[in-house]
Amino acid sequence: MHPASARAAEGLDARFASVGDDYAKLCAARLNIDMTRGKPSAAQLDLSNAMLNLPGNGDYLQADGGDARNYFGSVQGLLEARVLFARMMGAPPERILIGNNSSLALMHDCIVYALIKGVPGGAAPWSAAKSIMFLCPVPGYDRHFAICEAYGIKMLAVPLTGSGPDMDIVERLALDPSVRGMWCVPKYSNPTGEIYSEETIERIARMPTGAGDFRVFWDNAYGVHHLTGRPMEIANILELCEQAGHSHRPLVFASTSKMTFAGAGLGLLAASEANIAWFVARCSQRSIGPDKLNQLRHVRVLRDHAGIERLMAAHRKLLQPKFEAVDAAFARRLQGKGIARWSKPLGGYFVSVDVHEGCAARVVALAKRAGIEMVPAGQTFPYRTDPRDSNLRIAPSFPPLNDVSAAAEGIAICIEYAVAEHRSSERKG
Amino acid sequence: MHPASARAAEGLDARFASVGDDYAKLCAARLNIDMTRGKPSAAQLDLSNAMLNLPGNGDYLQADGGDARNYFGSVQGLLEARVLFARMMGAPPERILIGNNSSLALMHDCIVYALIKGVPGGAAPWSAAKSIMFLCPVPGYDRHFAICEAYGIKMLAVPLTGSGPDMDIVERLALDPSVRGMWCVPKYSNPTGEIYSEETIERIARMPTGAGDFRVFWDNAYGVHHLTGRPMEIANILELCEQAGHSHRPLVFASTSKMTFAGAGLGLLAASEANIAWFVARCSQRSIGPDKLNQLRHVRVLRDHAGIERLMAAHRKLLQPKFEAVDAAFARRLQGKGIARWSKPLGGYFVSVDVHEGCAARVVALAKRAGIEMVPAGQTFPYRTDPRDSNLRIAPSFPPLNDVSAAAEGIAICIEYAVAEHRSSERKG
Repeated sequence: MHPASARAAEGLDARFASVGDDYAKLCAARLNIDMTRGKPSAAQLDLSNAMLNLPGNGDYLQADGGDARNYFGSVQGLLEARVLFARMMGAPPERILIGNNSSLALMHDCIVYALIKGVPGGAAPWSAAKSIMFLCPVPGYDRHFAICEAYGIKMLAVPLTGSGPDMDIVERLALDPSVRGMWCVPKYSNPTGEIYSEETIERIARMPTGAGDFRVFWDNAYGVHHLTGRPMEIANILELCEQAGHSHRPLVFASTSKMTFAGAGLGLLAASEANIAWFVARCSQRSIGPDKLNQLRHVRVLRDHAGIERLMAAHRKLLQPKFEAVDAAFARRLQGKGIARWSKPLGGYFVSVDVHEGCAARVVALAKRAGIEMVPAGQTFPYRTDPRDSNLRIAPSFPPLNDVSAAAEGIAICIEYAVAEHRSSERKG
Repeated sequence: MHPASARAAEGLDARFASVGDDYAKLCAARLNIDMTRGKPSAAQLDLSNAMLNLPGNGDYLQADGGDARNYFGSVQGLLEARVLFARMMGAPPERILIGNNSSLALMHDCIVYALIKGVPGGAAPWSAAKSIMFLCPVPGYDRHFAICEAYGIKMLAVPLTGSGPDMDIVERLALDPSVRGMWCVPKYSNPTGEIYSEETIERIARMPTGAGDFRVFWDNAYGVHHLTGRPMEIANILELCEQAGHSHRPLVFASTSKMTFAGAGLGLLAASEANIAWFVARCSQRSIGPDKLNQLRHVRVLRDHAGIERLMAAHRKLLQPKFEAVDAAFARRLQGKGIARWSKPLGGYFVSVDVHEGCAARVVALAKRAGIEMVPAGQTFPYRTDPRDSNLRIAPSFPPLNDVSAAAEGIAICIEYAVAEHRSSERKG
């Protein structure tokens, strides 16, 4: 071995030994912290406890005089609820549909209906095609990818750039008529915190597509979920698509799961008139209508867009320190070592970490042994496979602040340890 | 014309003239009564008003300690809710799944998943077959038939006998491998009030089927919805099928839509372990889980099976007089005239009337002109076509008692008028 390499190796071994001590201490601390999913904390849920006895005895009349307890009304949801969320959705109430407690269910059903029955502007049901493909900006939301996988929709990964997906690649792939859709989390993206730039959104709206019935699944899950005092705004995909002559392209989703109650919120869909009519027609076969009392509950507690903003400011107060704790722990242990880069999100629920290639799964295993539950490595990629085994998703919202600090410190140690181990084995190999 | 015929014709014309006067008076009364759908009345909904401020501030802990406000838990629904409904469903809690506010949605999704992915015991997705058929006892529930129609499932009508579908026909048709399922409303059936006999249910459980993955969609929508002091019980399809070696055959549905709130109840599914696991796997792609707070609300207000029975007895008090009013009006005007037969249901939400062949649509049109809204004739048949144009469905639950009496009287007049008119035109023709 060359003397310089030998000296470097010694340095590495010394660092390895030192981080090994740290990891041993971490394990001895016997943590038990769940950092897997983007769940609100109990304190966040407490913000909406008033809903637990809403709408209140005697309060069940809809704005149109209908009885929200009964079957009356449209599958599109209560008008007053659609008015409440119009600004958040970037669409007038008549182009909004409000379902039950899951926007994922609305996305799922759009895909299922597209597969079995086709969509407006389409010549046939999607399932009639030999091959169906979706563009998947990565890293992304595992549950989006799981729907595609369940229904045999081939996923094409597209790298994110920091201002949305690489549009050169998107525009090229979208020309293939088999490519029928694209997943987007355009704001405070899961997990990278990505905010799609105006240019990106314009290009998504304008781009020619091979399929005449191409759909953008625009999951604006974190539209009002700011982590700083400077709320970010993004371009309105519905308007840009309409201007570009592609008004049926976007299906815009959101939910109140991370506003009111994660398990008992409202799922929302905004889209062109034809798309809404299509979805209404389809889901009218499925149910007489959504739970209107839960919509009334949301109207009573949130009142208007200012009410939404007040609630989200209260969430921010609880969330911001947790994200700061993660950043502080990572900065302390990882800054300048060239072994990991992590996001500093301005909103949303996640910190995304890219560690030295080939180390992510090992980090998760080390963390698990140390009592820190992380989402499996690869989970943020189609088919649960990160080709570089590099990306980790950190969800700091649920545990108490102290636990978040401890977990972030612990994960940083696991990253150091895994990378040192990896380099050591590379050297030996 | 033969003198006897002429005299008969004169009698007919006189009766026609007299009922014509009655019909003119009916129109002059300018009624405005909706007898279309099986909706609970406001007074019935009031019985559950306590739910409007449940579970109550501070009450959100599940029996397992989980937080019902959050994402935690299984897509199968809260254990305590499944325990609550176990007796009503005729299945242990582990074979029950509780969804959101619509059992129709569960039925719809079972069919959609069967089409796209197949069911346990099936060799392929149903959609892979050239032709799929369902047996449809008639008259039946229009929304069942609408799902079949929407997804291209051919419906084969089977007459009801008074103790369930004609099983000789069912057994014969079920031998066709294209026949993959059958709709049943086994108790207080919509609309005939039919109660399937033990023999019928045993034969459904035992019968050989051409399809290895045949499913009985057992919509026990009115299982606890008695209209008399003598609750009727039916055989347990799940147990009988298990005994017959067909444990995966039945999918048992129910809901609390006509127990608590029609628009904000719970949809329930009971089935074999494999069927429940199948549905859980499928709907786990769709949503993180159902609205657990609404399940908790039901647990708090109903408490146990005795609580369900108390609530249903209170419903009966409100419903029974309305059904008696319909029967009284029909008896007064139609008894012994040989122009209509109507059901005297022991439970459920409907009175079914079979009028002189070829007259049902005319009755609905006459009633409409007189301000009485009825469901379109034919609606209770596959493809909305009653081959005999004879069946009418009366839904007395929603309007106040006085209106129900007036509407029943009015419908009886319309029946007399339509039949007289029909006979008169037959004679002239």
